[in-house]
This record gives sequence, C-alpha cells and structure tokens, in this order.
Amino acid sequence: MTTVALDLLGGDEAPAVVADAVALLTSDADPVDLLLVGPRDTAVALLEERRVRTHGIRFANAESFVRMDEDPLAVLRAHPDASVLVAARAVATGDADAWVSVGHTGASVAAAVLELGRVPGIARPALAVVVPALDGPVVLLDAGAAPDATPDLLRQFALAGHAYARSLGVADPVVGLLTIGSEEGKGDRLRRSAHEVLRETLPAAGIRYAGPVEGHDLAWGRAAQVFVTDGFTGNVVLKALEGAVQWSAVRMGSAYGDPAPAWDVVLRTATSDFAGGMLLGVAGVTVVGHGAGSAAEIAACVRLASRASAGGLMGLSSAALAGSAP
Amino acid sequence: MTTVALDLLGGDEAPAVVADAVALLTSDADPVDLLLVGPRDTAVALLEERRVRTHGIRFANAESFVRMDEDPLAVLRAHPDASVLVAARAVATGDADAWVSVGHTGASVAAAVLELGRVPGIARPALAVVVPALDGPVVLLDAGAAPDATPDLLRQFALAGHAYARSLGVADPVVGLLTIGSEEGKGDRLRRSAHEVLRETLPAAGIRYAGPVEGHDLAWGRAAQVFVTDGFTGNVVLKALEGAVQWSAVRMGSAYGDPAPAWDVVLRTATSDFAGGMLLGVAGVTVVGHGAGSAAEIAACVRLASRASAGGLMGLSSAALAGSAP
Repeated sequence: MTTVALDLLGGDEAPAVVADAVALLTSDADPVDLLLVGPRDTAVALLEERRVRTHGIRFANAESFVRMDEDPLAVLRAHPDASVLVAARAVATGDADAWVSVGHTGASVAAAVLELGRVPGIARPALAVVVPALDGPVVLLDAGAAPDATPDLLRQFALAGHAYARSLGVADPVVGLLTIGSEEGKGDRLRRSAHEVLRETLPAAGIRYAGPVEGHDLAWGRAAQVFVTDGFTGNVVLKALEGAVQWSAVRMGSAYGDPAPAWDVVLRTATSDFAGGMLLGVAGVTVVGHGAGSAAEIAACVRLASRASAGGLMGLSSAALAGSAP
Repeated sequence: MTTVALDLLGGDEAPAVVADAVALLTSDADPVDLLLVGPRDTAVALLEERRVRTHGIRFANAESFVRMDEDPLAVLRAHPDASVLVAARAVATGDADAWVSVGHTGASVAAAVLELGRVPGIARPALAVVVPALDGPVVLLDAGAAPDATPDLLRQFALAGHAYARSLGVADPVVGLLTIGSEEGKGDRLRRSAHEVLRETLPAAGIRYAGPVEGHDLAWGRAAQVFVTDGFTGNVVLKALEGAVQWSAVRMGSAYGDPAPAWDVVLRTATSDFAGGMLLGVAGVTVVGHGAGSAAEIAACVRLASRASAGGLMGLSSAALAGSAP
C-alpha cells in the first residue's frame, strides 16, 4: 500500500478543490493512503464539511504556499513550512511514497530538487506526461522542464521515460525520437545528433529504439511508447494536442447535433493519467498537475503517483540512469 | 482571372489522381483556368476518359518527374523537362499566376528556387499552412522548410506569414510567437531572442504583435492569426494536430456510436485550405501538397493557389520583406 502526500494549498481553487479530490479518492474501490499537507485545522474542517471518512488519512501541517506570481525560490527559502517543501520532505523521510501538487509548477520542481535531490545520471529533471494514444498509453517527455536540450540530455530523458513507462505497466516499451520525416538526415541539428547518440546507446542498454517518430504517431502509439523531445517542443505539442481535441469536440459535436458526448471524451481524457506530469530525475515520485485542475483531475494525479510508486518507478529509473553514465 | 499550373506527374497516384482533381475543379461554380503540366497525350487521354470539358485548360509538355526516393537536385539538373521545373517556369514567364505540385516536396522547393528565385529580404523560404481554427483561419509557419531557424529568420517569416494571411482576406492579422508560457523570460533561447526582435520590428512595420502564444491557441485562433515558429516545431505540431483530430474521430465517433459524421469533419478539414502548404519567400505563388493527397485535396491546393494569387500575395510579401531589410 502506498501513501501519497497531497498539497492542500496548491491549485487555483485550493484548498476547497483539493478537499473535493480527497472526497473522490476515498470512494475509490481501493483507496490510496493520503498524507494531507496544509493547515491542519482547515484540512480537518474541509473533510468534515464533505463527510469524508478519515480512515487512511494523515495530516502534516504547513502554513504557507507559493502564489502563481511569486518567485518560487525566494518564497521557499523564506518559508521552510511551505506546503510543497513539507510534502516533498515527507517523501524524503519515508513518511510518504510519492507526492502531488497542482500549485505553481516551478515551486514544485524547486521543492522536489531541494528536498529529494536528483537521481545520479541525469543533468536536469524532465516532466513526463501520459498521452492516451489509441493503441495504449504513450509517455511524452520533456513537456516543459528543460526548453533547451542537448543530445546527451535527450539520452537521459529516454532512459527515464523508458523507466516511467515500465512502472506504469508497459512491457518492453519502444523509445522514439520525436522529429520530422523518417528519412535519415532529416530534422534539426539537435535531432540529427541525438539520433546518433540514441541509436548507439539505447540498444546497448537493452532498450528498443524505433528511431525517428513523427507528430501524428503520438495519437496512435504504434511506432513507439516513449516519445523523447526537448521541453520546448514537448510543451508546444502537448498544448497543441489539447487544443486540437477541444477543436474536435466543437466541430464534431456540432456535426452530430449534440455536443455532450464529444465533451465527455474531452473530460474523460483530462481526468485520466493525462492529468499529471511526472517529474523524472528527482529522487522521489513527484507529480505536478494543472493549477486550474478540477477535483477529478487532482484525484487522477494522486492515483497516477500511487501507481508509478507501486510500479517501482524509483528503482527502475535509478537503475536505468546509473547504468547509463556515458 | 488567374491561371494555375498544375503538375500532372506529382503525387503517389499521379497522373490519374491529378486528372480526377481537374475533373472536380471544372465543375466549380467559377472554375480556375488551368495549365496542365505533363505528357500532353496522356493528359488529353485522361481528361477525355473523365469527360472533362477542356475549355479554360491549356497544356505544357513535361516528360520526367522526381521519384520520392530520388535526390531532387540531381534529377532536376539532369532533366530540365521535369514537370516541377516546367510548372514553376510557367509562373516565371507569366504563362501562369501560380503553380501546384503534390509530388516530392524537396523537388518542388528546389524547382521554385531555381526557376522563380527568392524574394529579396528573406534568407530561406518557409512553408505556411492554413489551420482552420474555430475563430477563423490561422497561418502557421514554418511547417518544415527550415528546421533550424534564427531570430532574424523568424522575423522574416513573420512578415511573409502576415502578407499571406492578408492575401487570404484576413484583415489586419495579429502575429504571435509560438512558445511555452506567456510570462516574460519563458521559452527556449531562440524564442527569448526572437521575442525581442519581433517586439521591436513588427509594430514599426505596422503589424500587430501579440507576443507569446501557445500550442492550444492554434485551435482557437483568437490570440493571433499568424503563428511564427521554426520548421522543426511547426512540422511536429502540424502532424500532432492531424493525429489528434484523427484520435478524436476514433474516440468521439465511438462515443456517438456512429463514426461517419466525425470522419466527415476530418475529411472536410483535409480538403480545405489546410490541404496545401504555401511556399513563401520564392518569387511566385507556389503550393505544395501531400504526396498521398486525394483528388479533393489536390483540387483544394489549386483553389488556394488561385485565391492567394488573386489576393495579391506576391505584391504583399515582396513589399513586406523589402521594407524589412534589417
């Protein structure tokens, strides 16, 4: 059984929306154990209001948080009781197996690095998202943590993303390099170099490498199950996908004369594993979600954190990155 | 009235599929004048088979073409009668106002540069696509011609894309820089520099600049009508959009229990202005389409070429780029 530390103070509508997420989680068939991080009295009152059974719920006090317009590092230095620090620290001390925040992303990344440290063998953490492709889940990374990447950083992301896919139950995932055109010599300078590095190192590490994969392959998940890219491209693509699915809901909903089923697809996707970005390369399972996330999205982040932890993410990624020092 | 030169030998199913496109075009309410470029006897026979009225159709003989697996420059040097060269040359000589090929993209780009030359003020041509956003058409460029870009090249693309949007009837289009996050200082190195350049130069050229725009803005078309990016990001995003709309057709079609209306949206999109990439920065209206394009997609490319030409694309883009020499 895993315990997930959940930041009660992160999110545009926090703490109420996080308490709503807790209420959803406690009605799961096999509920996750929770460590709620925030002002204790507020937390207890919010759960009582929602008549949440507190069996399996513990509390860790935290009084401050990082506002969206604040410089996260400055706030975290001044406030060691910031909720993201307390939540990440709970994982560092073994009080929890994973932690989740839907607050300021920069603050969550900083808290993870400060409290948990980096996994040896990776120069910068990456944010990995699970895209619900038609043939099964696909891991896309980096989704925004490292906008400028080097070929060697993409190699590290490939190893971390492969470990993440395995922790979610994808057997022997294939890694692809997100690029343009499948012919040799296509792509930009970064991709041409990265292809050489991946082709050399991944098979040596026992990882199947598909070579170049393209934007449309993300929707199908057939060519690869791990899509490696820099954080600039990954973030633009991720948001383009979200926009395109909303575009489709409008256009297709109108073609059917009833938008509801189309928007239901959008909603189900938003509240799937797609809800949370897994921060890979820090020494503890860390999920960051959208600040505007609904209760159902926050609950999905918690389930994802629990599943990756139970699936052995930390062991798999540490081993992959340790074996990979160039 | 505009005349469009159409490459009969380009496309996976050429020349039959191109002849099918001609048949579609001649039944338009206000048909475009065509200059069909290919083996003359074959062209005539194909049109007769389809009972196409040849009023408004002229022919230019061309016997060779560039196969998808060939090096385009080598073939074009050896075969001055290659269909892409003859078609581009027709625009250079004034025999046609625009030209279209759905063959080898690299060959079309090379033929355009060789026969038409570049517009002064742009270092490399860009491929611009029209994304049918919910609030109206949006121009996205570069979609793959220049995978590695500099801030100044993005400035040139901004001017060319703005001219293209105007030629399609978008009044006073707003230019945005496709990036991640709307806060100052976000994005990769290229975007941070490009933002400074665009912020400085676009308003001075009388062009509205929205600043940073994100991937999801492409679906709405509200934040900007011209999205500027490098050819790597643009191509990945474009294909990701196509994949996401197909994903939506599968998932939403299944939610409604009848896939047909959803796939009809996909089909209508593929046969809209979205069908053709406009090659900007060459001194003649040049549209390249997908090699696997259907007859309806090829016909859409011809209509787009005609409309951009009639809308004054060449005058607008030459003026914009000439005024902009740094």
